Amino acid sequence: MPIVRTTLIRGYPEEVRVRLAERLTDAVAATIKAPLDAVTVAFDEVEATNYMRGRVPRTPGEALRPASDIVLQFLRLMEDRDLEAARRHLHPDFTMVFPGPSHGTALTKLEELVAFAAPRYRFVRKTIETVDESYRGTVTTVFVTGTLNGERPDGGPFEGARFIDRFEVEAERIRRQDVWNDLSLTLASTPESRG
Amino acid sequence: MPIVRTTLIRGYPEEVRVRLAERLTDAVAATIKAPLDAVTVAFDEVEATNYMRGRVPRTPGEALRPASDIVLQFLRLMEDRDLEAARRHLHPDFTMVFPGPSHGTALTKLEELVAFAAPRYRFVRKTIETVDESYRGTVTTVFVTGTLNGERPDGGPFEGARFIDRFEVEAERIRRQDVWNDLSLTLASTPESRG
Amino acid sequence: MPIVRTTLIRGYPEEVRVRLAERLTDAVAATIKAPLDAVTVAFDEVEATNYMRGRVPRTPGEALRPASDIVLQFLRLMEDRDLEAARRHLHPDFTMVFPGPSHGTALTKLEELVAFAAPRYRFVRKTIETVDESYRGTVTTVFVTGTLNGERPDGGPFEGARFIDRFEVEAERIRRQDVWNDLSLTLASTPESRG
Amino acid sequence: MPIVRTTLIRGYPEEVRVRLAERLTDAVAATIKAPLDAVTVAFDEVEATNYMRGRVPRTPGEALRPASDIVLQFLRLMEDRDLEAARRHLHPDFTMVFPGPSHGTALTKLEELVAFAAPRYRFVRKTIETVDESYRGTVTTVFVTGTLNGERPDGGPFEGARFIDRFEVEAERIRRQDVWNDLSLTLASTPESRG
Amino acid sequence: MPIVRTTLIRGYPEEVRVRLAERLTDAVAATIKAPLDAVTVAFDEVEATNYMRGRVPRTPGEALRPASDIVLQFLRLMEDRDLEAARRHLHPDFTMVFPGPSHGTALTKLEELVAFAAPRYRFVRKTIETVDESYRGTVTTVFVTGTLNGERPDGGPFEGARFIDRFEVEAERIRRQDVWNDLSLTLASTPESRG
Amino acid sequence: MPIVRTTLIRGYPEEVRVRLAERLTDAVAATIKAPLDAVTVAFDEVEATNYMRGRVPRTPGEALRPASDIVLQFLRLMEDRDLEAARRHLHPDFTMVFPGPSHGTALTKLEELVAFAAPRYRFVRKTIETVDESYRGTVTTVFVTGTLNGERPDGGPFEGARFIDRFEVEAERIRRQDVWNDLSLTLASTPESRG
Repeated sequence: MPIVRTTLIRGYPEEVRVRLAERLTDAVAATIKAPLDAVTVAFDEVEATNYMRGRVPRTPGEALRPASDIVLQFLRLMEDRDLEAARRHLHPDFTMVFPGPSHGTALTKLEELVAFAAPRYRFVRKTIETVDESYRGTVTTVFVTGTLNGERPDGGPFEGARFIDRFEVEAERIRRQDVWNDLSLTLASTPESRG
Repeated sequence: MPIVRTTLIRGYPEEVRVRLAERLTDAVAATIKAPLDAVTVAFDEVEATNYMRGRVPRTPGEALRPASDIVLQFLRLMEDRDLEAARRHLHPDFTMVFPGPSHGTALTKLEELVAFAAPRYRFVRKTIETVDESYRGTVTTVFVTGTLNGERPDGGPFEGARFIDRFEVEAERIRRQDVWNDLSLTLASTPESRG
Repeated sequence: MPIVRTTLIRGYPEEVRVRLAERLTDAVAATIKAPLDAVTVAFDEVEATNYMRGRVPRTPGEALRPASDIVLQFLRLMEDRDLEAARRHLHPDFTMVFPGPSHGTALTKLEELVAFAAPRYRFVRKTIETVDESYRGTVTTVFVTGTLNGERPDGGPFEGARFIDRFEVEAERIRRQDVWNDLSLTLASTPESRG
Repeated sequence: MPIVRTTLIRGYPEEVRVRLAERLTDAVAATIKAPLDAVTVAFDEVEATNYMRGRVPRTPGEALRPASDIVLQFLRLMEDRDLEAARRHLHPDFTMVFPGPSHGTALTKLEELVAFAAPRYRFVRKTIETVDESYRGTVTTVFVTGTLNGERPDGGPFEGARFIDRFEVEAERIRRQDVWNDLSLTLASTPESRG
Repeated sequence: MPIVRTTLIRGYPEEVRVRLAERLTDAVAATIKAPLDAVTVAFDEVEATNYMRGRVPRTPGEALRPASDIVLQFLRLMEDRDLEAARRHLHPDFTMVFPGPSHGTALTKLEELVAFAAPRYRFVRKTIETVDESYRGTVTTVFVTGTLNGERPDGGPFEGARFIDRFEVEAERIRRQDVWNDLSLTLASTPESRG
Repeated sequence: MPIVRTTLIRGYPEEVRVRLAERLTDAVAATIKAPLDAVTVAFDEVEATNYMRGRVPRTPGEALRPASDIVLQFLRLMEDRDLEAARRHLHPDFTMVFPGPSHGTALTKLEELVAFAAPRYRFVRKTIETVDESYRGTVTTVFVTGTLNGERPDGGPFEGARFIDRFEVEAERIRRQDVWNDLSLTLASTPESRG
């Protein structure tokens, strides 16, 4: 039943408007027990020349790049060990936490992660199953799940290790990454390549 | 800059309207690069007698109970091993996946989970750090992170085991739970109580 | 899909708002090929103190009495031959046209109608089947159909004579009545009471 | 005073929007005692890309062909005895009721009507005086009045026979036609061509 | 023709809403060549609980005291030589300019004005004829015209001296006052009381 | 916080819309104690074919020429003594009041003004400092301040004489002009060219 009318200054690309309309629909559908079909979202696009705030005409803001796009690109760059390009997506205060016995293993530099991974695997590839975004104020939290496969340090293969990554993204920069996975269980259960 | 006007039939409690306003704000803030202060959300409440769809007057729908409330209650009931009450929050097709070497350990009954846990710990308590909700259509995905502490089967304590749970909730029922944690790493690193 | 928002000064009774909402729905449903359920009508009631036209605060107008109410009351009063009360519903320029061989029988006074009816029946009662209203500008045309039964001048009964009356109503006054019926066919086919 | 704002997906032709605006005006003017000039109707046309219901972008529905157009075309085709073309405007459950002594003469096939007419006239032409539409939900009732002229079976002319037809139209198909007229009075009063 | 809809958080007193509605009407009427009666202004009052900006619920701001009220009170206090009370209406940077041969006589303290007036009149009273407000951004300029009467230094009366005062008011404080009048012409033409 | 939405028929030039938006902003800012930045003004431009009042489609009205433009042009024409062109800006009932000892000097014809000025100065030029417009209903009052310089009748120069003119403008015609200035003080204080 709810009808959501949003006034936008004209100029946002269609894909941004579709994304916004979906998200507004989702916000309503998550809150009100109504059939999805009863949720209507419409945009009133106002010409920039027809919009004034504080007695000053305004132009449309830019769209934010979807946080999940940024995260997926970061993950790809990390798989490829292109640390320099990956680093461009990071906030100056970036921290990451990887599996570890007590409160995990906190790292702040991508190089540390490379070192952390070395005894665990030669390389790893992610098969992604779900990507979810959660919004609160100016922070979007992105969750990526799937399975890892790759090569053990001794060259033996492994696969099917479940993982989930949690990313906090603000202003198109990743502030924090938390990683959980079944890698140790998987590696423990995989016969060493020659052992 | 965006102004979001939502027409609601009068009758939703204030906490529901605040929740909806926050979520609509979040949907905009995650999409448009605008200062949060430039996002305005307002509700036009229309008397039920002033709203007709399909030539039939309508009454306001119910609000959905927040999916994170349902999930947190479910987790509490499971900690307390009140399986019967916990089960009331589950969708008939409920499945859960716990850590395991390859693609995890899939379970469908809460009793199976109790059996799965028995060799791992006597009891476990969750210290919750983050709860995030992600909305898509009629499904809300809830992510809960924090640390586990409890007692090993031999009575020795453990703590600080990071966890994350991912829940899919639809129509106030949990359809799926996925669990990742550092429990095996933690237990492996904790000296057995008598060893 | 169409959403009809109407701004009204607060103060119209609920039955008037329901009537208006139905008529607005009907106007859309008659024009756009959409399922009736996709037509939403809502009223924004504005306090009289929040509405100004021409720099002058306004109060809500009165509702018009439904034209079909006026017509049905007029018909009842005519059946009862309460000409004086019936006349109060008539516009000064009232004309009526009853069946007749060429362009009907035009009358302007209710007394003429009584005289016109005298050789046809002693009394007549209407069984009403349909009442339809058609709106154009400030004129509502009302159509009433059904069957007539009553007593022939010789006292014999008749029944089942189909009729339709067309009324033009403006500003709560009947300006014109046009009558068609099968009365002559019915009377011709009914055996005279004694003869 | 009332202001009617209707949100439409952009794409309806101008004549449809004008028709809708007139009908919405009429709906208000028939309900509220306000000068016609105080009734404002405006359309907000929303780009199809700016409209989403149930999380799905929508395109504008089609306009309905005006019921009175359909009825007038049907009447013309019947005058011309083009039964096949006329039949295309009929709903499968079409019924019609013509004058008759008791509850009229019910017919369901156009051929029956031709047979019904044969002893009454060789041909008939309608001079149309009024056409009114009445809307309720998805049904439009159309009323057509005027006079009949034509040729008696014996070849003699007649004219000035008042008629009214009532049509129920739904989804661009005629479901029911009810006919009243002064034809029997007119024919009775017209000297036979050779008498 | 223009329709001005303003969304306000509920809570402004009626006199403030009337004042705002008049001023919005005036803004339109001064810009668009339309009969005043064609300008409609309406307020949508939104409950404070239904309004959120920047994800924070908001309460209605206060109304500004009309600048002309402040100015008229200031003028009254100055007539009564209640400098202390008058001074409360002044901005710290207050300046005033009174008649003088070249670019007027600039003063900054009310005491200076008293000294400036001493050789001109014993007291003066204003008969106010017009009060006009001009708005630009956060500054309202108030113009007061009328005539002065009073007593010459020698005790003789004078009257009918036209005056106009121009005041710049911001945030309820007078920043600047400019005075023009015919006082010197009037005094010159008035016979001294004892001459 | 206030959001002002104005429905306009499409067709007003951008400069008119900007002017209207500024004036609506000013009307709000002068009434509500809110930071200017919190005042949003937007226009919904409705196609002429999408706007109907009184069941009649409407076209946009013309814009009014700003009253201050008219006044400034009038002042320029008067400086140039182009009385014929100046007169075209005057309402038939035009009156003006110039400085004078008691209630000023009332004039109704521009020629009278020329005669009034002759003994005072050979010519005068205005240096304009402020132009303010005040709106009430269909009347705009314009205030122009600045200084006068020119030539005394004896050819000697003068300058720095403060002035203020008040104009009432309605329907693009000046109805009334009131003038105050320090000219007599200035002339009295300026040594005659040959004294």
